[in-house]
Amino acid sequence: MPRNISVERLTQTPIEKQQIEIAERKCIGHPDSIADGIAEAVSKALSKAYLEECDAVLHHNTDQGEIVAGESMPKFGGGDILRPVYVLLTGRATKNYEGKSIPTDSIALKAARDYIKETLRFIDMDSDVIVDCRMGVGSSDLRDVFKACNNNPIPHANDTSFGIGHAPFSDLEKIILNVSEHIDGNVRPKKPVIGTDIKIMGLREKDDISLTLCVPMVDRFCSGMDDYNEAKAFMVEEVRKVASASTDRKVNVFVNTGDNPENGSIFLTVTGTSAEMGDDGSVGRGNRCNGLITPQRPMSMEATSGKNPINHIGKIYNLLSTEIAKECVAKVDGIDDLYIRLLSQIGKPIDQPLVASAQYIYNGDGSESVIEKEINAIIDDNLADIRTITERVIRGELKTF
Amino acid sequence: MPRNISVERLTQTPIEKQQIEIAERKCIGHPDSIADGIAEAVSKALSKAYLEECDAVLHHNTDQGEIVAGESMPKFGGGDILRPVYVLLTGRATKNYEGKSIPTDSIALKAARDYIKETLRFIDMDSDVIVDCRMGVGSSDLRDVFKACNNNPIPHANDTSFGIGHAPFSDLEKIILNVSEHIDGNVRPKKPVIGTDIKIMGLREKDDISLTLCVPMVDRFCSGMDDYNEAKAFMVEEVRKVASASTDRKVNVFVNTGDNPENGSIFLTVTGTSAEMGDDGSVGRGNRCNGLITPQRPMSMEATSGKNPINHIGKIYNLLSTEIAKECVAKVDGIDDLYIRLLSQIGKPIDQPLVASAQYIYNGDGSESVIEKEINAIIDDNLADIRTITERVIRGELKTF
Amino acid sequence: MPRNISVERLTQTPIEKQQIEIAERKCIGHPDSIADGIAEAVSKALSKAYLEECDAVLHHNTDQGEIVAGESMPKFGGGDILRPVYVLLTGRATKNYEGKSIPTDSIALKAARDYIKETLRFIDMDSDVIVDCRMGVGSSDLRDVFKACNNNPIPHANDTSFGIGHAPFSDLEKIILNVSEHIDGNVRPKKPVIGTDIKIMGLREKDDISLTLCVPMVDRFCSGMDDYNEAKAFMVEEVRKVASASTDRKVNVFVNTGDNPENGSIFLTVTGTSAEMGDDGSVGRGNRCNGLITPQRPMSMEATSGKNPINHIGKIYNLLSTEIAKECVAKVDGIDDLYIRLLSQIGKPIDQPLVASAQYIYNGDGSESVIEKEINAIIDDNLADIRTITERVIRGELKTF
Amino acid sequence: MPRNISVERLTQTPIEKQQIEIAERKCIGHPDSIADGIAEAVSKALSKAYLEECDAVLHHNTDQGEIVAGESMPKFGGGDILRPVYVLLTGRATKNYEGKSIPTDSIALKAARDYIKETLRFIDMDSDVIVDCRMGVGSSDLRDVFKACNNNPIPHANDTSFGIGHAPFSDLEKIILNVSEHIDGNVRPKKPVIGTDIKIMGLREKDDISLTLCVPMVDRFCSGMDDYNEAKAFMVEEVRKVASASTDRKVNVFVNTGDNPENGSIFLTVTGTSAEMGDDGSVGRGNRCNGLITPQRPMSMEATSGKNPINHIGKIYNLLSTEIAKECVAKVDGIDDLYIRLLSQIGKPIDQPLVASAQYIYNGDGSESVIEKEINAIIDDNLADIRTITERVIRGELKTF
Repeated sequence: MPRNISVERLTQTPIEKQQIEIAERKCIGHPDSIADGIAEAVSKALSKAYLEECDAVLHHNTDQGEIVAGESMPKFGGGDILRPVYVLLTGRATKNYEGKSIPTDSIALKAARDYIKETLRFIDMDSDVIVDCRMGVGSSDLRDVFKACNNNPIPHANDTSFGIGHAPFSDLEKIILNVSEHIDGNVRPKKPVIGTDIKIMGLREKDDISLTLCVPMVDRFCSGMDDYNEAKAFMVEEVRKVASASTDRKVNVFVNTGDNPENGSIFLTVTGTSAEMGDDGSVGRGNRCNGLITPQRPMSMEATSGKNPINHIGKIYNLLSTEIAKECVAKVDGIDDLYIRLLSQIGKPIDQPLVASAQYIYNGDGSESVIEKEINAIIDDNLADIRTITERVIRGELKTF
Repeated sequence: MPRNISVERLTQTPIEKQQIEIAERKCIGHPDSIADGIAEAVSKALSKAYLEECDAVLHHNTDQGEIVAGESMPKFGGGDILRPVYVLLTGRATKNYEGKSIPTDSIALKAARDYIKETLRFIDMDSDVIVDCRMGVGSSDLRDVFKACNNNPIPHANDTSFGIGHAPFSDLEKIILNVSEHIDGNVRPKKPVIGTDIKIMGLREKDDISLTLCVPMVDRFCSGMDDYNEAKAFMVEEVRKVASASTDRKVNVFVNTGDNPENGSIFLTVTGTSAEMGDDGSVGRGNRCNGLITPQRPMSMEATSGKNPINHIGKIYNLLSTEIAKECVAKVDGIDDLYIRLLSQIGKPIDQPLVASAQYIYNGDGSESVIEKEINAIIDDNLADIRTITERVIRGELKTF
Repeated sequence: MPRNISVERLTQTPIEKQQIEIAERKCIGHPDSIADGIAEAVSKALSKAYLEECDAVLHHNTDQGEIVAGESMPKFGGGDILRPVYVLLTGRATKNYEGKSIPTDSIALKAARDYIKETLRFIDMDSDVIVDCRMGVGSSDLRDVFKACNNNPIPHANDTSFGIGHAPFSDLEKIILNVSEHIDGNVRPKKPVIGTDIKIMGLREKDDISLTLCVPMVDRFCSGMDDYNEAKAFMVEEVRKVASASTDRKVNVFVNTGDNPENGSIFLTVTGTSAEMGDDGSVGRGNRCNGLITPQRPMSMEATSGKNPINHIGKIYNLLSTEIAKECVAKVDGIDDLYIRLLSQIGKPIDQPLVASAQYIYNGDGSESVIEKEINAIIDDNLADIRTITERVIRGELKTF
Repeated sequence: MPRNISVERLTQTPIEKQQIEIAERKCIGHPDSIADGIAEAVSKALSKAYLEECDAVLHHNTDQGEIVAGESMPKFGGGDILRPVYVLLTGRATKNYEGKSIPTDSIALKAARDYIKETLRFIDMDSDVIVDCRMGVGSSDLRDVFKACNNNPIPHANDTSFGIGHAPFSDLEKIILNVSEHIDGNVRPKKPVIGTDIKIMGLREKDDISLTLCVPMVDRFCSGMDDYNEAKAFMVEEVRKVASASTDRKVNVFVNTGDNPENGSIFLTVTGTSAEMGDDGSVGRGNRCNGLITPQRPMSMEATSGKNPINHIGKIYNLLSTEIAKECVAKVDGIDDLYIRLLSQIGKPIDQPLVASAQYIYNGDGSESVIEKEINAIIDDNLADIRTITERVIRGELKTF
């Protein structure tokens, strides 16, 4: 059956040419990112256990869950967590399959605790965090749909929903991703005072780029305001360096502009994340699966993290449309902006979306029909090969936030 | 101090002229909407209590919270809730102020239970739902920022964040909102079998509009498949009628296309919401504050519901930018699409955004400079008058989802 | 099979003749009593539902559960509950039986909420209390034992355990029970200021009886210290009156001796129970099934409340041994003190205890062998008729705390 | 002020001469014992932290708390925990003192997790157990009483309550304690298949002693029924050996008499405790502070574990009366049975009980008045020295269950 693919050229000011552009990233230790990371870790652990035990990934969705902030008393030299962070695992997972019982709650608990341990290294797992679990079993309805795909044909869509992706990244988007990666990969390993719950807000006004970062400092590595200020200055410098290397535009960097040291208001933390005090987090409230929040770009509201990687449109179509967009841009010259949308219909095979739509903005002089054919073919191929998304998710090769 | 306002004309295919358009609404009983509604009800109740007790709205944010689905066994004629829905209230609220203790947990609990009672009339509040509460107190940092605005000057932004709004609504968007309103206002009062957890997914391919609705049926009003099918047919008819009255385009309506009565898979519920079984919900994962999810429009990821209406950018700027967009379109002719973005900087007065940006697509023959002056003035006036947003929120005049 | 019954005369100073005697009762609103009452209400509701649905009482035990105190701010004229009381239902219950699903969690939740509503009339069920549920399913092992008794033979003991009862009540014990009954039946209906969470501590030193009562006052009925003191004086009077009518001994009554009005330390409450602030409660930590804590008497540590009334020794044997003791004392003259102990062995029919032991102190001049034969016969008859205990429990005719 | 001490000789059949005697012990891994152990570990950790931070033990009571059983699937060779055990910490603790914040929740969480780790070595702390915390702050009333004792005078009783102790241990009681100790100290270290959740039920009928033990086997050390039966036989042998060495009476030993291997009903576990499946536990429901449940002896219903060791009568008087009884019996010859009761009055210094009562049964030919003087003196001395109880509790020298 031929797929319903629509490719459309838009006449539109490309994002790089618009006067104002906003983009944002919540880094790894932001409460929303922690929630996403846990949700995905749980789904991955379940998928692996199902494969091992049942030779099939059974129905589950753990794309919910809540981080309830604790209470802390940071102080220079090292403070205390007064009340532990509370993490609630929810969602549902199949617990019995052909006479086997799968210890889904225990698997989820372990996956969540392991993820937190790895991600938030200054959290004491025995005193600073409570991980609770209220996972359910799910509606038989959903389970029925899901069973259909255990044999070998293409799974059927769990819902009427859609996924969206875009490429290429704008200057601003690239800068934000590069800065985030640089901090995690190069800065923090050398400067443990730099916490993980960093928010990078980017604004481009014409050719002026401003990056405003909230950077929690870890109190045990900070003996006083001098250390604190030095760490801020260091961050400004590092961010400016990396950002400038990614663009010809002018870059201004601001770190912790809300600080008010006179009344003791600075961003000092015990563990490097505001989840220790004051900021709750939820799955799906932070970055889209490309790692960014891009309010000028089409976005899906669906959480990618934690959804089952077999038939959940909110996960698979978001990941796939992003992959398609990247591939198109890599292979087709002259595309300024490309948006891919995949819309499912509940119960239909996921390689047959109700509609797969591409919209592109073009600056080249190639033939529209050639370009559209190329895009069409890439979409078609990727849909035909949709199962590789599932596999890559389970192997942990695709980021979800 | 003059405001940093930027108005920019975009050359762009307006949404109505694009070949493909997708939009969606999660109606009042969708788990995400329930979460939003509870969050906002709690914030409203706290605001009122604070005003009464302290003559000021104190710091609070209840824009998190989780609906963990229960387990049910619907059956024709009336089934059972086997395991209650679990609702977790989180967030934080100021509990002490100038020697007064404000019973924030009790207020929150009552507001949540009252909201559920009103919204989900088939939920038995004594057996079908557990409302739990783990609200905290919040970081002293945030409280400091907040205290500053109790006197009378303009509050200061709680965060570096942004809000986004657009106008006018497209054909598809209008239809979805009209259908939703019609169901709540006219259909359900006459046909209690129609549950509240309706999802309306809209797709426009050129001039063909498809509305796909998931409609839970309430089992006590459904004696068998005949009733069920009749209710489906009735819904198709009602939706088509209302939708067609809103557009000249062709409208196709699909209800519960995933049904598979042979293997017992239909959308039958005890209470009218899938929160009773299988579907969790979170604040901020559903509709934006205009009532829609519009992936082709710029959107903010921030939850509008539950945030404090005084200085929380994620609430105030989303509501305000939507109001500004509507006012501009009402007063300025010829605008195809208008996007308003307001970007804050933490700690700065909220009437002085870092940048207020308007992007418009224009089909008229007026002077750009005149138009832009008009838009600029409307933005400026609305920012000057930003406190009315707070007041309208507390009075419940502004919808948040 | 003849039963292993042992009747033994003890040479022993009867309790009435000992110099010192202590006994205690935690009245209906004491947190431990609330926990007991909820546990028993849940068991009763489950038993009734099982009988209705399955024509048999299925395995369940809800003899655990926790009342976590809230936080309140009582004040003359009426104060506030700041943080709701948290009630956790635990235990286990059979959820599926011959293809039927029994909504055990919903039944338990409703029973608990209904019980609280009736018992603590000043608790606002929507703002002052959270009832949560973490009931499980139980070990298959226990279920196996239990299944055996659905047909018609005698159920088998769930455990190796024992029950204990005594009769007659001493002067002190009778007084405490009479006082408690009088307060609930006559005093509180006229004087709503008198809270339910009353603890009555009785001490007899030779012929002097002291009753020390902790009596929470309900703040909305108490406009100031005068009212408070008047209520205390009223209580002293009422208690003295009832107590004196039950004994020839001298009775001293003390109410709220810990009060220290100078530093604001009085026993004022919003709802009449200290569960609103500061005192947690657990099933099985308060009164034994005869309504008393009697440290000079043999006692079982088993919670009677909440256990299944079919085969749970901790419930049935405690109730039965108390009934047997009462019957013996009613029928056999001259008994000063009588103690009945029933010891089970796991898996054996409950009408065949490993040993049924009676110990009696006798002041009459009858023949020991006659008396012992009478006691033996009463024990034997009651064991033969052990199922009536189950029936009376389900009908609510036997108190468990 | 002279103390109100009453010493009374009872004419009474001593327990060893009664025909029937029952006693019981729940060993270290019984759910009730786990709850006790956690409660006491939390109290000890808080006491130490308070002493370190504030130079005084602040008010706290953690003598509540609940173990909600998980779900497991034991199997020969090693099974799975399907649903983690849920542990709820409740009670209250002072969080602020003279400007200092004490991280009571984090301290409690860590103490509980550490205790579980040490006690239940086959529990995986990351997947098999959830420790949650809902500790409160407590009534200002109690805090007031408590503050008074920080200076240096004797603390004041927190409540009108009592403690009870007895000595010497009967044959049966000694045997049970010896067996328990032997299993923990000698058997399990060599035979890890023997779980910790052992219940020892002792019955003496004249000179026949029966010990009925429930012994969970740890599945990973049990390859099949042969191993299981061998472990049972081994236990029977070990218990008989130790028991016989403690008495001249005949001892019969029964292990897991409820087993029914035909229908798969044996006491096999993954972790050695039935808390993994089916059996909840609560503080204060198991052993008295002498390690036993002795239904023929006077007992207090108060939980000793978890209560603050400064002014909580339910803890201090139970421990002290047991110590007094032991000392009397060690120093005074010819005592068959001795019962010590200490009754407090709320708000009075704890070294001045309302009454301290001793009842003794004597078989010697000494002078009553001499004996009573000796007992009186021992009681008086111990009351004068009551603070050493507090110190020994904090140092962990006194067992509480």
